[in-house]
Amino acid sequence: MLKNDLLIRAAKGEQVERVPVWLMRQAGRILPEYRAVREKFPNFVEFVKNPSAAAEVTIQPVDILGVDAAIIFSDILVIPEAMGLPYEMVEKRGPYFPRTIESIEDVERLRIASPEDDLSYVTDAIKLTKQGLAGRVPLIGFAGAPFTIFCYMTEGSGSKTFSKAKKMLYTHPILSHQLLDKITESTIAYLKAQIKAGADLVQVFDSWAGILSPEQYTEFSLKYIQKICTAITEVPVTVFAKGAFFARAQMNNLDCNVVGLDWNMPIAESRNLIPNKTLQGNLDPCALYGSILEVEKETKTMLQAFGKQRYIANLGHGLYPDIDPEKVKCFVETVKAF
Amino acid sequence: MLKNDLLIRAAKGEQVERVPVWLMRQAGRILPEYRAVREKFPNFVEFVKNPSAAAEVTIQPVDILGVDAAIIFSDILVIPEAMGLPYEMVEKRGPYFPRTIESIEDVERLRIASPEDDLSYVTDAIKLTKQGLAGRVPLIGFAGAPFTIFCYMTEGSGSKTFSKAKKMLYTHPILSHQLLDKITESTIAYLKAQIKAGADLVQVFDSWAGILSPEQYTEFSLKYIQKICTAITEVPVTVFAKGAFFARAQMNNLDCNVVGLDWNMPIAESRNLIPNKTLQGNLDPCALYGSILEVEKETKTMLQAFGKQRYIANLGHGLYPDIDPEKVKCFVETVKAF
Repeated sequence: MLKNDLLIRAAKGEQVERVPVWLMRQAGRILPEYRAVREKFPNFVEFVKNPSAAAEVTIQPVDILGVDAAIIFSDILVIPEAMGLPYEMVEKRGPYFPRTIESIEDVERLRIASPEDDLSYVTDAIKLTKQGLAGRVPLIGFAGAPFTIFCYMTEGSGSKTFSKAKKMLYTHPILSHQLLDKITESTIAYLKAQIKAGADLVQVFDSWAGILSPEQYTEFSLKYIQKICTAITEVPVTVFAKGAFFARAQMNNLDCNVVGLDWNMPIAESRNLIPNKTLQGNLDPCALYGSILEVEKETKTMLQAFGKQRYIANLGHGLYPDIDPEKVKCFVETVKAF
Repeated sequence: MLKNDLLIRAAKGEQVERVPVWLMRQAGRILPEYRAVREKFPNFVEFVKNPSAAAEVTIQPVDILGVDAAIIFSDILVIPEAMGLPYEMVEKRGPYFPRTIESIEDVERLRIASPEDDLSYVTDAIKLTKQGLAGRVPLIGFAGAPFTIFCYMTEGSGSKTFSKAKKMLYTHPILSHQLLDKITESTIAYLKAQIKAGADLVQVFDSWAGILSPEQYTEFSLKYIQKICTAITEVPVTVFAKGAFFARAQMNNLDCNVVGLDWNMPIAESRNLIPNKTLQGNLDPCALYGSILEVEKETKTMLQAFGKQRYIANLGHGLYPDIDPEKVKCFVETVKAF
C-alpha cells in the first residue's frame, strides 16, 4: 500500500489535499550522490543494466529532494536494444547506433522485445526500488513513444532535424509503419512487464513529436501512442509529447489519464483544449537557474495557472545537468506549500 | 523597375495573378553550381565576405530553379561580428564564437554595427546582385531577430537547449535587455543599409523563438522585433519566428507585412490567428525527399489550404543540403501552375 498516493489520485482525476510534484530527470545528473554511483561504471549502458545501482539512484531524489514520486532510472533506448539493435552512449555526444534500420529486411530481422529475456534488468530494478521505497511514494515506469524510438533506430543518433528519420516516413511509409508496429508491440510488452514488477503509473515520452507536421503526427505517432494507451489498463498512463502543441485537442481523446505539457504550451489554453485529462508540467527548466526568490515566484505563477486539482507539478522538460539542487528543492517545497 | 513583382504585391496584400514562390536556403547547399563557387574559399566566413561570389550564388537559384525572388547570400552572424564579436564556421559543427558575452562590461565593449564600415561586403553584394538580376525578380535582404543573435552571442555556438543563453535571461535580465537593445539598434541600421543598397523586402529570422515560454518570448523577443518593424518603413517586412506558435495572435498586430509559418503550424488555424498579414510557408522540407508525384501532391495540398491571395509559397524551414534539386524544381513549378 502507498503511504503517499497523491500522484495516483491526481492522475485518476480524484480530489487531492495538495498538488503532487516530481521532476523529469530527477534521477541523475544534478545530484552528487548520483554521480558517485555513476562513476563506478565504465559506461552508461552498463550502469543502466545494473539493477541495484539503478534502484539506488531512483530512490535518491525521494530522500534528497522530497518528491512525491520516483521514476525508474533507465533509458528509452533499451527497447531498440531488446529488439536487436544495440546502442552506445557516447560521452558528450549522446546515443549512437552502430547499425540502423534502412530496409524491410532490417525491420524483419528485428524481434519483438521479450521483457523476461531482454529487459529483466529493468524489471529487477523496479522490484528492488519498490522494496527500497517501501510504499513511501509511487514508482513511475516509462518508455519512449514509438515514433521517438523510430527516430533513433533510423537516424542512428541524436539530430537537430532528424531528417534521415523523416525522409524514411516520406520515402518508405509502409516500412515505417511496419517498424512502428513492431516497436509498439515491444513497448506494450515492456510497459506491462514494468507494471507487473511494481510500476504504479507509466509515462510515454514522445521527445521528438515536435519535428512532425500535424498530419504526419496523427499518422506516424499518435496512432501508436493510442494503441499503447488502449493496451495499458492496469495503471494510469501519462503521455508527454514535447512540441506537439498542434495535437493537444486530439490528446484530449486518448485513452490516457495524464497529458504532459512543455513550457511553450500556454496553461489556460491547454486546459481548454484538454479538459478531460489531468495535466502535468510545465515550468521551463531554465527557470531553475534564477534566484531562490525567482524560482519561488515562477513556481507560484505556474501553480496558480493550473489550479490545485487534476494537476501534477513538474517541469516542461527534463532537468539540465548544471541546475543547483537547492533550486530544485525550492521548486518542490513551493509546490508542497501551495 | 521589377519585371516580376509578385512577391512584393503579395507581401503588401495586393491581388496577384498567381502565388509567388521562393525557398529559404535556396541560395546554396543543394546546388552543384553553388558548391563550385564555395570551394574557391578556404572557409565560409571569407566566402560570405566576398561580394561577387555572394552575388553569384544569390542569382543561381533564380536561373536554375525559377523562383520569384532572390535572397542575398549571407549569414545572420555578420551582426555580432560587426558589433565586435567575431565568429567562425566550423565544418560539420556550425558557428563558434571564441569570445561570448558574459558581463555588463562585455556588453558595453560592443559597438553598434556601422554598416558602412563593417558590413559593406553585404551592401556591395546587394548592389552587384541587383545589377545581375536586372529587375527580373525582387531581392530579399535579411537579418536574425535580436533574440536569436543574443542566443549565439551568449551561448557561443549552436545548442539543443541554448540553456546558457536562457540562463542569462533568468539571471541577468537587465544585461539581457541591454544586449538586445544594442543588437536591435545594429540590426535596424543594417537592414536600412540593405534597403538603401537595393533590397526590395527584408525578412527577420527568429530561428530560436521556439525555446522560449510565451511570457519570455513577449518580453525578450517580440518587443525587439516590433522595434525593427516600426523602424523599417521603406519596404515590406517579413517575420519568421520558428516554433513561436504561441505568439501567432500577437504577430497579427506587429508592424510587418508578412508572417512566416513553420510546418508545425496548422494553416487554417494560422489564417484565423493572423488575419491581417500575408502568410508565407510552410511545407516540411523533408516532404521534398518524397517522389516527384508526392512532392506535387503535398505542394498542392499546401496551396489549397492557403489559397491564392495574401500568400507566398515557401518551405516551413530552410532546404536541407541533401535534397535533390529536381524535387525543388517540382515544388516551384507546382506553385507556378496553381
